[in-house]
Amino acid sequence: MKKIGIGIVGLGNIGSFLYKEILSKKKDIGLKTNTKISIVAISAKNSKKKRSFKFNKKIFFNNPLDITKNPDVDIVIELIGQSDGVSKKIVETSLKNKKHVITANKALIAKHGDYLSNIAEKKKVNLEFEAAVGGGIPVLRTIKDGLATNKISKVVGILNGTSNYILTKMQKTKNSFNHVLKEAQKLGLAESNPKFDLDGSDVLSKIRILSSLAFNKKISKNPCLKNGIENIELTDIKMSEKLDLKIKLLGITEIINNKLFERVHPCLIKKDNYIANIDGVMNAVILEGNPVGESVLQGEGAGPGPTSSALMSDLLSILRGNIKFPFGIPSSKRKSVICYDKNQNFNSLYLRFEVKDRPGVLSQITKQLAKYKISIERLIQIPDHKKKRASIVIITHKSKELNSDKCIKSFKSNNNVLRTPTIIRLF
Amino acid sequence: MKKIGIGIVGLGNIGSFLYKEILSKKKDIGLKTNTKISIVAISAKNSKKKRSFKFNKKIFFNNPLDITKNPDVDIVIELIGQSDGVSKKIVETSLKNKKHVITANKALIAKHGDYLSNIAEKKKVNLEFEAAVGGGIPVLRTIKDGLATNKISKVVGILNGTSNYILTKMQKTKNSFNHVLKEAQKLGLAESNPKFDLDGSDVLSKIRILSSLAFNKKISKNPCLKNGIENIELTDIKMSEKLDLKIKLLGITEIINNKLFERVHPCLIKKDNYIANIDGVMNAVILEGNPVGESVLQGEGAGPGPTSSALMSDLLSILRGNIKFPFGIPSSKRKSVICYDKNQNFNSLYLRFEVKDRPGVLSQITKQLAKYKISIERLIQIPDHKKKRASIVIITHKSKELNSDKCIKSFKSNNNVLRTPTIIRLF
Repeated sequence: MKKIGIGIVGLGNIGSFLYKEILSKKKDIGLKTNTKISIVAISAKNSKKKRSFKFNKKIFFNNPLDITKNPDVDIVIELIGQSDGVSKKIVETSLKNKKHVITANKALIAKHGDYLSNIAEKKKVNLEFEAAVGGGIPVLRTIKDGLATNKISKVVGILNGTSNYILTKMQKTKNSFNHVLKEAQKLGLAESNPKFDLDGSDVLSKIRILSSLAFNKKISKNPCLKNGIENIELTDIKMSEKLDLKIKLLGITEIINNKLFERVHPCLIKKDNYIANIDGVMNAVILEGNPVGESVLQGEGAGPGPTSSALMSDLLSILRGNIKFPFGIPSSKRKSVICYDKNQNFNSLYLRFEVKDRPGVLSQITKQLAKYKISIERLIQIPDHKKKRASIVIITHKSKELNSDKCIKSFKSNNNVLRTPTIIRLF
Repeated sequence: MKKIGIGIVGLGNIGSFLYKEILSKKKDIGLKTNTKISIVAISAKNSKKKRSFKFNKKIFFNNPLDITKNPDVDIVIELIGQSDGVSKKIVETSLKNKKHVITANKALIAKHGDYLSNIAEKKKVNLEFEAAVGGGIPVLRTIKDGLATNKISKVVGILNGTSNYILTKMQKTKNSFNHVLKEAQKLGLAESNPKFDLDGSDVLSKIRILSSLAFNKKISKNPCLKNGIENIELTDIKMSEKLDLKIKLLGITEIINNKLFERVHPCLIKKDNYIANIDGVMNAVILEGNPVGESVLQGEGAGPGPTSSALMSDLLSILRGNIKFPFGIPSSKRKSVICYDKNQNFNSLYLRFEVKDRPGVLSQITKQLAKYKISIERLIQIPDHKKKRASIVIITHKSKELNSDKCIKSFKSNNNVLRTPTIIRLF
């Protein structure tokens, strides 16, 4: 049996869970991979913090970079989670020192994945990041192995548990965004600074990783259509229910005319659609491939258990095998990205205008929409006589992103429109 | 680049599709695996049949066993599909001759998987059978790799496209079983002899393969609870709709008190349950694992496209890598199976009695149920006054399989009960 030393950097919720998981599964791992593993190095911000497990103090390193140089360490597991800084340094140095790397760090891979995979390939070591996308759902492995020779044309996912929890909870309890957010924070389902979860950044990182794997391309750096859920109000949730729709934050990536179109935004989805029913903290990914057809993967998207499951699958991949390309094919063969112009995309829209309840306002709005070639499929006006205001909800036929963008901006100068209209795309 | 020769035995729908798929993906496979593959041998029942592709006559072998000895062949793909006979001979001889084997043959693996994996391990070659379970859904790979170190406690699946298509179609069109079956045969969705699809045998083979992978056990040979959908009538479909339930043929395997409980039977499932909404030819598998939680995989379960997708993933697994254990761990470490006594299982039941419309019949039935400790949750009586008959549908509380079995049999001697009552277990 080959002896393998593991170093873990970062001992928060995930790191601590993983530490115990590795120890408890040692025998099983031995059976499956014919290796004898041991954790020979750990590092965390605070060496004195009370932890849920005991460890030999000799394996604790104050400077995590020392682990990346330690000759006893064969595999480094990075669980700090920054897109740059010490996280990048650890992964980079480990690879350069011919150590395999496992990371759950989507921000790092989405930003520096091309660079880091290049080093891994040169040094003939593995760089694995299954836990970066979809938590416990083995979606990267499925693209690389299970659906290996399929031509994938589109990937759609619910990829952020925090956002999905908030939207589900708002719908079920009819509580406001802020109320539900605070509750989620209390339950540990949202971070104290949830910005990247709520503004779509987290999903965008995941979508960029998925794109490059699914389409064999370099990671896109281009700015892209990204809206989060911060502007979804209870009014919109209630209105969507009346329309037999549900609001979900989707990440979508697809190839249109050989160009890559990546986007993250809330979508209104028909209630009987499969993806509309992925509720709470669950994640799901739908892959369209040829010849396999539509494949769906669903599972828990976050938390120590599911994340450890993914990290352990990376560990077994390294222990079992020969070196694999981090993105499935050699870096040199991954094509550069040409981006689809989002402005050319057509979408049906849900628009909500908050207006002064005055004669002529509706006609101003419809006239403006017509000017930008946006035609109306459905219109609902809900007056609030006390406040002398009204909500006007419009479902449009498919219209060009460029036009709708310009049109929405044009209302800024209209005093009757009380604030920037809410816009949600239909799925 | 290493040169690899492939032999394909069986050139029906699947084999022909795969032949073309391999040729069209040669370059992609080269990129991903650094190998140069070519199809160097093929065999089929009829060498003169008109086929959708052209081939060099020199690579056609009248005797498929010659392929298993051919020194140019590194990988044999078996697509005949018998549980014994020539299929077994081909796989066995190929492995003994140190050739990797890929097969889509669930009947073969469910029956001889232990024996064959032993040979593969001894000869240090791969035996891959992803296409045997779940068509295009990479569920075996997910258990072996993506969820590698999870402790799986239960697997539930819709694993037979033909059965699921028939049940879905009966529900949607309100046509009879026989009508829908004929239609399915015309569409190529049911075989001319659909026995093994409809009586649960096909699902049982798949469940046995899933059990051994999920629980690291030898394949069970024990008889087991197996009912198909042949006795489901339109009446049951209509009644299930009234009860807000749907009928699905499920394969279920789980560990109860360290014993293996495998079963295949139709289930009544609440309409809002995820698995109730897997319709048509789709397959789905739900895995309960620790620490990952619940994982769901869904996709097309049959047909040349999805099956080829799975066969190609097997091919890449071989081309990419070192030798893997066919069932994830060494055969010698796979434990023998101890079976759970199905008679001890508790289930709520749907019972439908067709009876003569006479006074006292209902009381006879309820008395008999009481005798076997089966208590009634709900009872619906639908009289047919013209025929002087009635249907009595009973939903029971949870009762022991042994008791319900005995109870149902006891009605044989009751002249008022016109035929063996229909029994469907609630999920």
